[in-house]
Amino acid sequence: MSLRSGGRGSAVARDESDPLARFRDRFHVAGGDDLIYLDGNSLGRLPRDTTARLAEVVEQQWGQRLIRSWGEGWMELPRRLGDRLGETLLGAAPGQLAVADSTTVCFYKLASAALAARPERKEIVTDIDNFPTDRYVLESLAASAGCTIRWLYGDPRAGPTPEQVAGAVGPDTALVSFSHVSYRSAFILDMRAITDVAHEAGALTLWDLSHSAGVIPVALDADGADLAVGCTYKYLNGGPGAPAFLYVRTEHQSELRQPIWGWLGRRDAFEMAPGYEPADGIAAMLSGTPPILSLTAVSVGAELVIEAGIEAVRQKAAALTEFAIELADELLAPLGVSVGSPRDSARRGGHVALVHPDARELSARLIADGVIVDFRTPDVIRIGLSPLTTSFTDVWEGLQRLRQMLES
Amino acid sequence: MSLRSGGRGSAVARDESDPLARFRDRFHVAGGDDLIYLDGNSLGRLPRDTTARLAEVVEQQWGQRLIRSWGEGWMELPRRLGDRLGETLLGAAPGQLAVADSTTVCFYKLASAALAARPERKEIVTDIDNFPTDRYVLESLAASAGCTIRWLYGDPRAGPTPEQVAGAVGPDTALVSFSHVSYRSAFILDMRAITDVAHEAGALTLWDLSHSAGVIPVALDADGADLAVGCTYKYLNGGPGAPAFLYVRTEHQSELRQPIWGWLGRRDAFEMAPGYEPADGIAAMLSGTPPILSLTAVSVGAELVIEAGIEAVRQKAAALTEFAIELADELLAPLGVSVGSPRDSARRGGHVALVHPDARELSARLIADGVIVDFRTPDVIRIGLSPLTTSFTDVWEGLQRLRQMLES
Repeated sequence: MSLRSGGRGSAVARDESDPLARFRDRFHVAGGDDLIYLDGNSLGRLPRDTTARLAEVVEQQWGQRLIRSWGEGWMELPRRLGDRLGETLLGAAPGQLAVADSTTVCFYKLASAALAARPERKEIVTDIDNFPTDRYVLESLAASAGCTIRWLYGDPRAGPTPEQVAGAVGPDTALVSFSHVSYRSAFILDMRAITDVAHEAGALTLWDLSHSAGVIPVALDADGADLAVGCTYKYLNGGPGAPAFLYVRTEHQSELRQPIWGWLGRRDAFEMAPGYEPADGIAAMLSGTPPILSLTAVSVGAELVIEAGIEAVRQKAAALTEFAIELADELLAPLGVSVGSPRDSARRGGHVALVHPDARELSARLIADGVIVDFRTPDVIRIGLSPLTTSFTDVWEGLQRLRQMLES
Repeated sequence: MSLRSGGRGSAVARDESDPLARFRDRFHVAGGDDLIYLDGNSLGRLPRDTTARLAEVVEQQWGQRLIRSWGEGWMELPRRLGDRLGETLLGAAPGQLAVADSTTVCFYKLASAALAARPERKEIVTDIDNFPTDRYVLESLAASAGCTIRWLYGDPRAGPTPEQVAGAVGPDTALVSFSHVSYRSAFILDMRAITDVAHEAGALTLWDLSHSAGVIPVALDADGADLAVGCTYKYLNGGPGAPAFLYVRTEHQSELRQPIWGWLGRRDAFEMAPGYEPADGIAAMLSGTPPILSLTAVSVGAELVIEAGIEAVRQKAAALTEFAIELADELLAPLGVSVGSPRDSARRGGHVALVHPDARELSARLIADGVIVDFRTPDVIRIGLSPLTTSFTDVWEGLQRLRQMLES
């Protein structure tokens, strides 16, 4: 079969000229060539350094220094790691990010803070296809704050446009919240344009960067974002259930108050004084004791992306997803598979949605066959092409297997 | 000097006949005999098995099985670990406990759920000396729910009595919340009697077990507790910032709704359907993705306490704290130190408060001298005598050093 994409030989050639190919050896590549892992956007692979670094922190900092480690760096770790992500990957000046709690809890804190800062406004704008945890948290907060949610129905392959958002916001809009990159189709929203539209209406914006962080450059400060959260166990390779980051723009830090008033968000925490007073700056967004082991693993994973450089990572993400779409058009379209992701690389994150009515069953069969993908309701086989660990050959092999499955 | 306590020789003899002495070797005992660690109630020591077990989970479950591990035990880990703690340490039948999120976040969820379940009632009862994060979270929730807090002023050495609580609760009380063991003085409250009093008034109870779990037996089911949370990085040796457990009595699970509606608390999470519907049972109290590495470390630490047996651990805690009080009376009372903990072992947890006007400075000097204690405002040197890792000789040496410091 003669392929425009060039077939397997082309995949191998692409791997040979890939400047990031060497990063694959920095990770445990499970099962050698037998496993085709196309799910690095759900759980990033294990960096080779993680075990040793964890052992070092566990044995030296916990085992030897014990409680003294809180004064020797642990207490600052959520903010230090946040600053590092801001400087290298998220386009944020220091003092605006912290890593702690799950994405859901971070999202809850910031969405709640935003609604409390606009108490006279009673509407939240989001889209019907936003990630479930974001939708559910907004539902909860809307119910308790007496707000309503305006659900936008965006094009499933392109997401809500700034014009749609402009038509939805108004003087009653408190908060506009979207995923920057869609978890299903990978469309990238125009953060700058949507933020401008929200600000013109006097609303705050809260961005979920879970499928952006570590795969495409983000410009939180430059794009004017007010608030953001994001996951670290996807492209940042922080490990299963790793804590999330949250971002609060400096100019809002004295105004916004999050509701989970814990001791570590209080000014002079160890005075244990009566009455909560928020700490200065981003520290006020913290609540409980920082999860040191998890933060350690996040740091190892994130440093690999930082070392590779987010621009190079982004270029490879575009090339991998482009290749996957070429192959899907050639090999899978005749078998009833369509591409559910944007065709313009500039509007597409690091994964690709392959649409087929039997996606649920096909995904299960692929996984059983050693091609790890994700099924996303109702009809999407999602392939995540994490640039540091996914080869072009992986993409070729994975989609060949899907083709064979559909043909048989 | 002739001592009623018998001095150092007596300490050595007590260690020699201690049935739990062998457990000390199951932990990394940092710095050998040089370091006197009297802070195991703030951060428990590192179990020897933790590094290897973490490496195994990291390399095999994350590294090799990757995303498939969610279906091979990870997703159930919060509840499986909760059930295990309930069965062995907390007196709770299965299906009522889960481990996830920080103590602060767990406390927030349950306190919020309790207030929402009693919307017509507008009072919260707690004590002025409760742990700061509990006080601050209750303040936050009181402000947002339009409630007031009735602050009880208990005897600092004994805590609020059931009679005091009875005098404070009434038809307007929604929630009664205390620490079961006080973080400062170690007094144990009467869970059963206070719960009965709260229930007579139609209120719910929320217990903070942070300084109880793993050092004294808890009987959540038998004592009628409605809700509880607790820390795992103290006597359970789960590591810095390890996730907390939460307990919701079975009979309340269909009634109570926590506010952080995340995808993993929803029925059929992976359907990602519109509209939040809580999962059945304790799973509805979950929010985000479980922190697998942290949960692994908690499991290792907790299993050591379980292996030792909570009754034996409790007996040693009583003996260690009794010995500390004897020494304080003999060696330190003449130098201006008084005991700020209950003298009745049955009413005292695993730590002892030593009261001195210069406690802040003395604590800092002790730590610099290799005797790790905690200062607690305004005037307490707190010594935590974690039964699996603290020897009677540690207690003797630590208090001798304090005596020398006060004499010089």
